[in-house]
Amino acid sequence: CHLLKGKSTSTSFGVFFLQMGWGDLGAFGEPSKETPNLDQMASEGMLFLDFYTANPLCSPSRAALLTGRLPIRNGFYTTNAHARNAYTPQNIVGGIPDSELLLPELLKKAGYTNKIIGKWHLGHRPQFHPLKHGFDEWFGSPNCHFGPYDNKAVPNIPVYRDWEMVGRYYEDFNIDLKTGEANLTQIYLQEALDFISRQQASQQPFFLYWAIDATHAPVYASKHFLGTSQRGLYGDAVREIDDSIGKILKHLQKLGISENTFVFFTSDNGAALISAPKQGGSNGRFLCGKQTTFEGGMREPAIAWWPGHIPAGKVSHQLGNVMDLFTTSLSLAGLQPPSDRQIDGIDLLPAILQGQLIDRPIFYYRGNEMMAVRVGLYKAHYWTWSNSWEEYNKGIDFCPGQNVSGVTTHTKEEHTTLPLLFHLGRDPGEKYPLSFASAEYQGVMERISNIVQKHQVTMVPGEPQLNVCDKAVMNWSPPGCEKLGKCLKPPKSEPKKCIWPH
Amino acid sequence: CHLLKGKSTSTSFGVFFLQMGWGDLGAFGEPSKETPNLDQMASEGMLFLDFYTANPLCSPSRAALLTGRLPIRNGFYTTNAHARNAYTPQNIVGGIPDSELLLPELLKKAGYTNKIIGKWHLGHRPQFHPLKHGFDEWFGSPNCHFGPYDNKAVPNIPVYRDWEMVGRYYEDFNIDLKTGEANLTQIYLQEALDFISRQQASQQPFFLYWAIDATHAPVYASKHFLGTSQRGLYGDAVREIDDSIGKILKHLQKLGISENTFVFFTSDNGAALISAPKQGGSNGRFLCGKQTTFEGGMREPAIAWWPGHIPAGKVSHQLGNVMDLFTTSLSLAGLQPPSDRQIDGIDLLPAILQGQLIDRPIFYYRGNEMMAVRVGLYKAHYWTWSNSWEEYNKGIDFCPGQNVSGVTTHTKEEHTTLPLLFHLGRDPGEKYPLSFASAEYQGVMERISNIVQKHQVTMVPGEPQLNVCDKAVMNWSPPGCEKLGKCLKPPKSEPKKCIWPH
Repeated sequence: CHLLKGKSTSTSFGVFFLQMGWGDLGAFGEPSKETPNLDQMASEGMLFLDFYTANPLCSPSRAALLTGRLPIRNGFYTTNAHARNAYTPQNIVGGIPDSELLLPELLKKAGYTNKIIGKWHLGHRPQFHPLKHGFDEWFGSPNCHFGPYDNKAVPNIPVYRDWEMVGRYYEDFNIDLKTGEANLTQIYLQEALDFISRQQASQQPFFLYWAIDATHAPVYASKHFLGTSQRGLYGDAVREIDDSIGKILKHLQKLGISENTFVFFTSDNGAALISAPKQGGSNGRFLCGKQTTFEGGMREPAIAWWPGHIPAGKVSHQLGNVMDLFTTSLSLAGLQPPSDRQIDGIDLLPAILQGQLIDRPIFYYRGNEMMAVRVGLYKAHYWTWSNSWEEYNKGIDFCPGQNVSGVTTHTKEEHTTLPLLFHLGRDPGEKYPLSFASAEYQGVMERISNIVQKHQVTMVPGEPQLNVCDKAVMNWSPPGCEKLGKCLKPPKSEPKKCIWPH
Repeated sequence: CHLLKGKSTSTSFGVFFLQMGWGDLGAFGEPSKETPNLDQMASEGMLFLDFYTANPLCSPSRAALLTGRLPIRNGFYTTNAHARNAYTPQNIVGGIPDSELLLPELLKKAGYTNKIIGKWHLGHRPQFHPLKHGFDEWFGSPNCHFGPYDNKAVPNIPVYRDWEMVGRYYEDFNIDLKTGEANLTQIYLQEALDFISRQQASQQPFFLYWAIDATHAPVYASKHFLGTSQRGLYGDAVREIDDSIGKILKHLQKLGISENTFVFFTSDNGAALISAPKQGGSNGRFLCGKQTTFEGGMREPAIAWWPGHIPAGKVSHQLGNVMDLFTTSLSLAGLQPPSDRQIDGIDLLPAILQGQLIDRPIFYYRGNEMMAVRVGLYKAHYWTWSNSWEEYNKGIDFCPGQNVSGVTTHTKEEHTTLPLLFHLGRDPGEKYPLSFASAEYQGVMERISNIVQKHQVTMVPGEPQLNVCDKAVMNWSPPGCEKLGKCLKPPKSEPKKCIWPH
């Protein structure tokens, strides 16, 4: 009934895809409780407590969300070294392959208008442009807002409106690294409100992908929010995002289209503890953070909101994944997922609308390696690694203040013959591996081994996109640079293997 | 207005005083979200996010709640060694001094009927009996439910109804240590419901102190709840307590007295991580647990509930303490706190009813030492210690999986001249001490030093009650034992210094 209603009125989609930790929301126990809008979104919708990203790093998890496929399939990984996190810095040569079918490409065929606001991160060379992959509009940048650069050795990151750049970070879109002030979230908010108003006026169904990065280092907030949080600058950024999301939801309600708009909030990876406490958030009581395949790196805050369809204040223990947003959105739009390839996302509607629990595993990948798998409440680590001793001794710590002997290892440790098994209900912090000799271990591992074997035997990895780096491909002369007088001269092409340290 | 209304109708009080960690409630971010009744209590009342116990161990914090005074003042500490946690095991000679004025003693003068259900823990010798200290009724035990004992070297702990014992744990009140089954919480629930019904019938104001210990090791739950939690036996116990509290609140509502009954839920210390994962709970993202003066040991879940007076769904950042329940209850009863002694508790009504924030410090004591102090969002550690290397090497770990260099120390470390300072908003996990050289450190410590100096200069410690132990004082022959044929012969008196290892 709800499903049909959704279909007949062409449900629109909003996806808020942020970098926040599980524990950054008041609804998930952040002790300062500074996210009234997200908490209200949860109280009006459904809170997911067991929702995951497909990778503990931004580019691969964004590729996974938009393709419904694991990064190992869609190419967003590296084979330069074993089990290494890789992404799309400016010098990356690869990006989203044309052969991948993205959610907006499919929705477009069903009459949707698609907009991405914020960080694309699926490649910045011309062939990877989001408007070549199904989006109709874009406001944001292809890469992270790192900088400022000197425009000689390294160019500043461009900001695009649709096909062309309209300026660069630190030049036309300032981020004051000293004060943390930047009004970018306000611009991104306005972009969202305007787009929604236009879609409502034209009665077009839409897909809005709001993928902004104020909580990604370097963290920023606009003047109005600076200094307002108990949590410092990171908290200021969270407050501004929270406020913006509240305004977007209210806008949907004001326009009378909230009952036709399925909205989902989640995160691309766990909070970056390496940036804590000033620029890093909280993964609650979970182990470690971004870059790792512990719960702190991959379990994400998640809220589904769809007034009139999702009963208010529900909580779900459905094991979910960002890839499910692909399949769920297609289902709501009355479309079939592609049948010519393996899709890892599942349709969450039975969980969201009927409270069903669908049995499915969660795979935790780091680069080309399946590090762990969750089945029910059990999680088996086939490999453990936080980061190398070499990095750790330089002060790079993905698990600050946490040290679980034999688990948060700085040597890469293989457990493929005898995985470390945890019960995430009794032990969400992954501190107490089950005894190998226990009946519980044996029974559970038998079941998990079958699932893993099936997964690995049928796995056909895509061509790795994140292997080659070249300074010549940086954002020297993005389209539109001529009009702005912002074209820079690229250096000579020297393709090299990218170095991924962890 | 509310205040007057409260007074004129003789507000009754219910205090739920459990051993649960900050992170054990769904409302505080426990990922299994299995406390629907406590979460509802919070959504109908006020959630305190910055509420503390007076000591990271049960006896002293119970003494503090009932006297409104720090354990260092009311005698619930030891001087046998520096900064040691002490409590009231069976062989303790001391207990609550007659000179202390307990909340029920004061309320009694205003016509209240007072009942304690559960663990008294303020001394088990005749002069310390709760009915000699203001309570009118008691159902429960004087000590923890450890056992079973052989009744030769050590007697089993008695269970009292009012003046006399009605049986012993493991004999007449069974706890099956293998299965974890015990129906004690159901008995304690029934006691509460009956008491409330009688008070309502007689139109007497009452003070009900529900201080049960199902989540204290050895953890237990009744058959109906066993195996129902994702969290194992500890979670089963939490679910049963949650269910019981829901039933008590509904009972108040059904009897039409909820608007005349001020109810507070909190905990006597942080969850015991040493018992995790099977018998230990969660302190969320806070550092360490029970026995320590880190946030995990002393920040407690707390909810105030008073329909018609406290607006629904409020959150407070008021720094609160269990000692405030003494002062707040007196205030609601229209009574003055004693003026002949130092009272550490404050009246929380302005915070609860008018949303005010009252500036006050929180002192973190371990035995005879002030280990730390919180002022605003800052916490200064004057001493750090988790437990000794000797104990740690035996596997006793109050901070499993947590290790903050220089903070979770196994040697007792003095920082009195240069305290370790943390900002609990940016860093609730106490992982990142502020730089001593920073302007922030200097400014904050100047303020804190003044507060600490004033506190220490005016501190007059009470006579320590927890120094002497003697096997002869154990529960060999509690009053009423003759009727049951359960009197045991005490050994010869041999008073000795108690040994407190941490």
